[in-house]
Amino acid sequence: MVKQDRAVRTRKNILEAAAKIFEERGYQAATIAEVLNAAGVTKGALYFHFESKEQLAQGVLHEQDQRFVIPGRPCKIQELADVVLLHAYRLQTDPMVRAGVRLTMDQHAEGLDRSGPFLRWSVVVRELLDTARSQGELLPQVVPSVTADVVVGTFAGVQSMSQTVSGYQDLQSRSSALLRHLFPSIAVPSVLASLDLSESRGEVVYEEIRSRFEQQPAAAVS
Amino acid sequence: MVKQDRAVRTRKNILEAAAKIFEERGYQAATIAEVLNAAGVTKGALYFHFESKEQLAQGVLHEQDQRFVIPGRPCKIQELADVVLLHAYRLQTDPMVRAGVRLTMDQHAEGLDRSGPFLRWSVVVRELLDTARSQGELLPQVVPSVTADVVVGTFAGVQSMSQTVSGYQDLQSRSSALLRHLFPSIAVPSVLASLDLSESRGEVVYEEIRSRFEQQPAAAVS
Repeated sequence: MVKQDRAVRTRKNILEAAAKIFEERGYQAATIAEVLNAAGVTKGALYFHFESKEQLAQGVLHEQDQRFVIPGRPCKIQELADVVLLHAYRLQTDPMVRAGVRLTMDQHAEGLDRSGPFLRWSVVVRELLDTARSQGELLPQVVPSVTADVVVGTFAGVQSMSQTVSGYQDLQSRSSALLRHLFPSIAVPSVLASLDLSESRGEVVYEEIRSRFEQQPAAAVS
Repeated sequence: MVKQDRAVRTRKNILEAAAKIFEERGYQAATIAEVLNAAGVTKGALYFHFESKEQLAQGVLHEQDQRFVIPGRPCKIQELADVVLLHAYRLQTDPMVRAGVRLTMDQHAEGLDRSGPFLRWSVVVRELLDTARSQGELLPQVVPSVTADVVVGTFAGVQSMSQTVSGYQDLQSRSSALLRHLFPSIAVPSVLASLDLSESRGEVVYEEIRSRFEQQPAAAVS
């Protein structure tokens, strides 16, 4: 158990160092030597977990969209809003999330399959919309697979625009505006009237998840 | 006049070569020597028009959003749709447009102010929405400056997602889906019912503009 804990910590160290290097240098320019240096681990330890620069980048991409699980909500459109607004909040505060987004949007990252996060997010959103449909939350013309891609693609663009014009400072208000523009084409009016799409929602959800973790016994957290 | 024509052609050659190099190599890796080589012009000619790599990139960015002017439409929401759908069509067919988009989304282009296209597009969309409001086309809650940024940011993201998952092959259907999701939150129902937001709209508008050019006397075209 102790050995496994150490391996998990080492892997986490390496990914955090890789996130930092990829964010600073871009995929093409970044080297494994720089990641080694930033992580302070041996070459053997790094290659035990990741065999190549691409595997490191895939590790960062996978980590950033797996890290936080939104509490289930009775209203699935609210749950979708929470996924988007929490991600916006975390993008301002978590280097791993920022690095993952940069890798995904890096059109010059040759040899790196960047479609993973787009496709994984699409599946997450699609599943939420399928449940929303079965609960009667969706307007009749909505096709969940099409709408899922619109939600994922549009949110990626709002992130890019916010990064470019304000260094993510206005991301939460832009994300709230995005949802207020998309959801009237997706959800029935009674659902719309019940939603919290405010700018501060991401931070509220973040604190909710944190306090749940803190209430759990220590063994369950590691 | 002849001298001026030659200067215009040289500038155009240089920008097309720069577009190709920036698209292939990314901003950071691209060099002025590569642009010189691809354009087949003298160093003196290039520096007469552009003093630095950044000026070349700004030239490409400026060119891609100035090149095509949409015919005015009585319905300004249709005109906005035409701007978006024509751009989607041209992104598939014009290297200058593709290079401009890549530069704008290149988060590792250090020292290059990439906010220009976002902000210029926002102004274009904002003006269309202001006119739409004065004509009674907008729903009462719409704030044109906020909605303009949502349209520009979301379209940028749909482009990125399309580039990543299909090399722009599905951009026209994704752009059509984007507008069908956004416009019900923006336009009054009678306007919505009159719109053409179909996938083929971009090509239709492109052919319309081309045929107008061809009908003009040759002197006006150069």
